[in-house]
Amino acid sequence: MDNKRIVVALGRNAFGETFPEQQANVKKAAQAIADLVEAKYEIVITHSNGPQVGMIQTAMTEFSRLDSRYTVAPMSLCGAMSQGYIGYDLQNAIRTELLNRGIYKTVSTVITQVRVDPFDSAFSNPTKVIGRQMTKEEADAEEAKGNYVKEENGAYRRVIAAPQPIDIYEIEAVRTLLDAGQIVIAGGGGGIPVLQQGTRLKGASAIIEKDYTAAKLAELLSAGTLLFLTAYDRLTIEAGTPKERVFDKISASELKKYIDAGHFPAITTFPKVDASIRFVSAFPDGKAVIANLEKAKEGLAGKSGTTITA
Amino acid sequence: MDNKRIVVALGRNAFGETFPEQQANVKKAAQAIADLVEAKYEIVITHSNGPQVGMIQTAMTEFSRLDSRYTVAPMSLCGAMSQGYIGYDLQNAIRTELLNRGIYKTVSTVITQVRVDPFDSAFSNPTKVIGRQMTKEEADAEEAKGNYVKEENGAYRRVIAAPQPIDIYEIEAVRTLLDAGQIVIAGGGGGIPVLQQGTRLKGASAIIEKDYTAAKLAELLSAGTLLFLTAYDRLTIEAGTPKERVFDKISASELKKYIDAGHFPAITTFPKVDASIRFVSAFPDGKAVIANLEKAKEGLAGKSGTTITA
Repeated sequence: MDNKRIVVALGRNAFGETFPEQQANVKKAAQAIADLVEAKYEIVITHSNGPQVGMIQTAMTEFSRLDSRYTVAPMSLCGAMSQGYIGYDLQNAIRTELLNRGIYKTVSTVITQVRVDPFDSAFSNPTKVIGRQMTKEEADAEEAKGNYVKEENGAYRRVIAAPQPIDIYEIEAVRTLLDAGQIVIAGGGGGIPVLQQGTRLKGASAIIEKDYTAAKLAELLSAGTLLFLTAYDRLTIEAGTPKERVFDKISASELKKYIDAGHFPAITTFPKVDASIRFVSAFPDGKAVIANLEKAKEGLAGKSGTTITA
Repeated sequence: MDNKRIVVALGRNAFGETFPEQQANVKKAAQAIADLVEAKYEIVITHSNGPQVGMIQTAMTEFSRLDSRYTVAPMSLCGAMSQGYIGYDLQNAIRTELLNRGIYKTVSTVITQVRVDPFDSAFSNPTKVIGRQMTKEEADAEEAKGNYVKEENGAYRRVIAAPQPIDIYEIEAVRTLLDAGQIVIAGGGGGIPVLQQGTRLKGASAIIEKDYTAAKLAELLSAGTLLFLTAYDRLTIEAGTPKERVFDKISASELKKYIDAGHFPAITTFPKVDASIRFVSAFPDGKAVIANLEKAKEGLAGKSGTTITA
């Protein structure tokens, strides 16, 4: 295990939605990364892509209506586009922030495919909401195509499977760049989900939670730290009630008890908590930290954020 | 100079247009690359992105009509998406072809930014046609936004600048992967064109000819060979006339004479010929080869294609 090697997972607050919003927001992420570079960490970055891949998927669907030669773009392909798009803004912002501090270091984005299991139970129980709201008619059309749709208060959204990552095909590229002292952005949006069929990889209609891909990257790269940068300061339960508890440090086994007791909402916090437990269980010398995007350095030093250990 | 290092430039015939077409077509490119791997070449691949970036640009424009928070996506951003999209299919196909031959080698795509000069004369004389045909009204709206439009026989198309590449920001990432014996896809679509403003890079409204980016990659990586894989066998002038000449081998100075005499059509062949001349002029020990995608190995061996030397 390498104590100076760190996998940083950026959440959606690091990006925002529109193009100018993303360009402005990534500057904060770049500052956090530059702080870690100054602290001599070797850094791999992964990131979410929720609004971005939704935007691309909607845009490509519109395109298929304009040009009859085209079908709707598969999710895997939209994921690949989102890696290019987000990686571009992110590597750019980090480069600038480092140069502003007098540091010259190459930052690049590697298009990354992540293996998922066709028998992952997520495929029969899709939970990840994507794309814009649909009318009843559009929802019916989606279901007729074999896609899953969820209805909530009369609004229809497409949902797709969120299977676990089981391997990362471009891991040697990431490792090589990291070993050379460079900064790498990889596994964006959780990676392009693919099914392995003999020597072939086939895009899967899925989105992998980037938190699990971050943990998988940390595992495969023997990183000492898995750092989730998010919109809040610390893991908290029963917030705003007399029973409120804020965690500075917590062990995986204690954290499991809170999960079993029904804490941590499924969509926003659970994957981070679960991925943290998986990582420190596999690497008992490692640690996972969940911290505010604007307090990355403090989070690593234990002065902010929640540190999770085995 | 490294005689075993080669930059391969793939033209639009390597991809086609629709998603299934691209997935099928990249298999031929993968075979060509695998042949070169078996011949022990170190390989960097770059590729065109004409129809793909046009598709993305149109799709994103439609999206901006659907969602009023969004403006039309800048070309640079569409270029980044196209690198992710094409790179994904290409790295996948090469991986499969290599595994089918019993070769294990990591193939990855690096999102690449290429510096252009704001004073490049191309910006005042845009020549590169992009996107779908427009109506007169749409064309007027584009011009009102400050974009260039070209009219041909009553059909309107947007045209943008095709400036020369002057530097590649992620070149150290490409070099590191290449030195580690991996295959790298970089500078896709000619690279994302950016203007350098202090420590900042700003996306430029341009498309860089991938042939020039290929030559720039070859120069920066000291590659011995620059290989253009295309739809025809050999450089030919006055085809189908009694004066027809087909070139097996030709020197840069001789080639220049034919250019000055008005041969080689501007859009399809000229950039390859011009980029070849630039490369062998800078590296007199190197060679440029223009060959059929299906005869890459033969092209390198001088049994097919046109070899251009200083």
